[in-house]
Amino acid sequence: MSPVSNPRVILSSRPTGYPVPGKDITYDSARTIDPTTVELNGGFLTKTLWLSLDPYLRGRMDEEKRYAPNWAIGDTLDNTGIALVVRSEVPVLPVGAHILGPLPFEAYTVHSASAASGFQVIDNKEGVPLSTYLGVLGMPGETGWYGLEEYGECKPGESIYVSTGAGQVGSVVAQLAKSKGLRVIASTGSAAKVAFLKSIGVDRAFNYNTSSVAEELERFGGIDIYWDNVGGKMLETAIEYMHPNGRLIICGMASEYNHEERYGPKNLAQFIYRRLKMIGFVVNELRPKYVNTFYATAPGMVGRGELKYSEDVFEGLERVGEAFVVMLQGRNLGKVVVRVAQE
Amino acid sequence: MSPVSNPRVILSSRPTGYPVPGKDITYDSARTIDPTTVELNGGFLTKTLWLSLDPYLRGRMDEEKRYAPNWAIGDTLDNTGIALVVRSEVPVLPVGAHILGPLPFEAYTVHSASAASGFQVIDNKEGVPLSTYLGVLGMPGETGWYGLEEYGECKPGESIYVSTGAGQVGSVVAQLAKSKGLRVIASTGSAAKVAFLKSIGVDRAFNYNTSSVAEELERFGGIDIYWDNVGGKMLETAIEYMHPNGRLIICGMASEYNHEERYGPKNLAQFIYRRLKMIGFVVNELRPKYVNTFYATAPGMVGRGELKYSEDVFEGLERVGEAFVVMLQGRNLGKVVVRVAQE
Repeated sequence: MSPVSNPRVILSSRPTGYPVPGKDITYDSARTIDPTTVELNGGFLTKTLWLSLDPYLRGRMDEEKRYAPNWAIGDTLDNTGIALVVRSEVPVLPVGAHILGPLPFEAYTVHSASAASGFQVIDNKEGVPLSTYLGVLGMPGETGWYGLEEYGECKPGESIYVSTGAGQVGSVVAQLAKSKGLRVIASTGSAAKVAFLKSIGVDRAFNYNTSSVAEELERFGGIDIYWDNVGGKMLETAIEYMHPNGRLIICGMASEYNHEERYGPKNLAQFIYRRLKMIGFVVNELRPKYVNTFYATAPGMVGRGELKYSEDVFEGLERVGEAFVVMLQGRNLGKVVVRVAQE
Repeated sequence: MSPVSNPRVILSSRPTGYPVPGKDITYDSARTIDPTTVELNGGFLTKTLWLSLDPYLRGRMDEEKRYAPNWAIGDTLDNTGIALVVRSEVPVLPVGAHILGPLPFEAYTVHSASAASGFQVIDNKEGVPLSTYLGVLGMPGETGWYGLEEYGECKPGESIYVSTGAGQVGSVVAQLAKSKGLRVIASTGSAAKVAFLKSIGVDRAFNYNTSSVAEELERFGGIDIYWDNVGGKMLETAIEYMHPNGRLIICGMASEYNHEERYGPKNLAQFIYRRLKMIGFVVNELRPKYVNTFYATAPGMVGRGELKYSEDVFEGLERVGEAFVVMLQGRNLGKVVVRVAQE
């Protein structure tokens, strides 16, 4: 085999607000690689098949330090993805295996031997689409599952409001909550997503662009749990409708990621009057406690159609910038994934 | 005995901001009572000795419903106090007993038999001043003690910031935290209170009117626990200096009680990045779990001078309105109590 193109996607400047494709996020096709001859030095060579795009990546584009490492200007983006092992000098990652782990946004990658421990082999006994391991069976699904298990203190008959309920995290929260006997109200940003929410069985779905969150929560009779992916005014409204001893699980604050002007809820004194509890978390800290149960349970549920999901597939690394904007603006219908290559 | 005056204090109109004595809170001396002949109907007659004033009472003056019942216009104020049993048809509350419980703001009160269960007899084996049962040994002390025990998750070497540390709640939190091996930074509103904070052994005390909270917390190296009695901008600053996995215990939001314009912290996204937890509570829900340990431990500590306190005594029901304003404006040095009568 002669050298082939090894395109990649880099952070070319720090965005303010939404990243601009071609300015902040750039597709770079200058490099080549020869997959048959490139030196492995004890490591392994992968061909990228799928890459995940997740809202938290927006924070990595900023200078301000958050919980995930920031990218420097010129860095190749990276995130969880699925790859095919093409050549390998690492016994636990044999040629032909599908592996899940941290991948640069590029077509081919040579990994050192020490990187092997960051990957898991997907055996996929259930035969579900591989890309689900980036969504409903990946970090977003784990986030919803682990967070609700750990902090929900769910009791049958209680009610939960899931903001951005049609997202990959929110839709897992909504379905897990239903399976625990909760009444579920969920909001999303379009009629198509409202239809998706109805299809996964929530009790009440509404479009927050056309309905009043306050009126919806009032009519629903208030809530015991708020799953927050939005922050700001949405959080303030949710606090207003919390029942005593309610729990607020802060999973994301999409309203805060892209705006210079942040909004602070003015009704935090309700935390005293109603004995509320608010918890922020990241999935990694909960993984050790729940990961085995999750992977013993959730893939089968997906295979049998008991845990539903929705995906937006973008074809090719060239479309990463566009996919970012769609995701950050909430214009996607399901989980945003990039198909980098067919096998 | 012939009839004697039975003065009281009533809510005469709903305040905006600080209550105005004589307009919102009125001393009414029109009524009389004959303590020797008044009908008890199976109940008991008390002479009020001490009344407690607490910031949460401000909320009861509003129309907006909170966790404690609101007063109607014309209602006699009421709160925890200490009384002497003058006559009694209730065997468990004998004549001469000092009892602690809910009392109207009046000189003499006839209680029904069913009210007896709301009172406890103070046996005071330790011989501490009776009024301490309204402060360091009463609801404020219980609040600080129970809240820190339940939600602090204190580990030796961690650090805590106590806002309004010289208050009765805050000073108990600060001293209990020190006894658990924490580093304690505390703020208050005057030089005299800073001196009190130093006298109870906090590591760093400062006046938030003359020092920058941010600079103080920065220099202290950040905090693991924030005990909030203030809310608003103070809460926002504290969030900025929380260590990962920090706990924010919301006990009061003094900045919110008297202002029409409320301030909402704009940095709640830090809850995700730093995995923070914020909890609001009221003491009543924690009392069953901790009350026995508290009364087996704390009175002895007060008697031996190991748990220090400070009191501001106002003499006479006539001064209730003035005492309220002093307390709500934070001009008191210690716990605000009203001495209604000598025995």
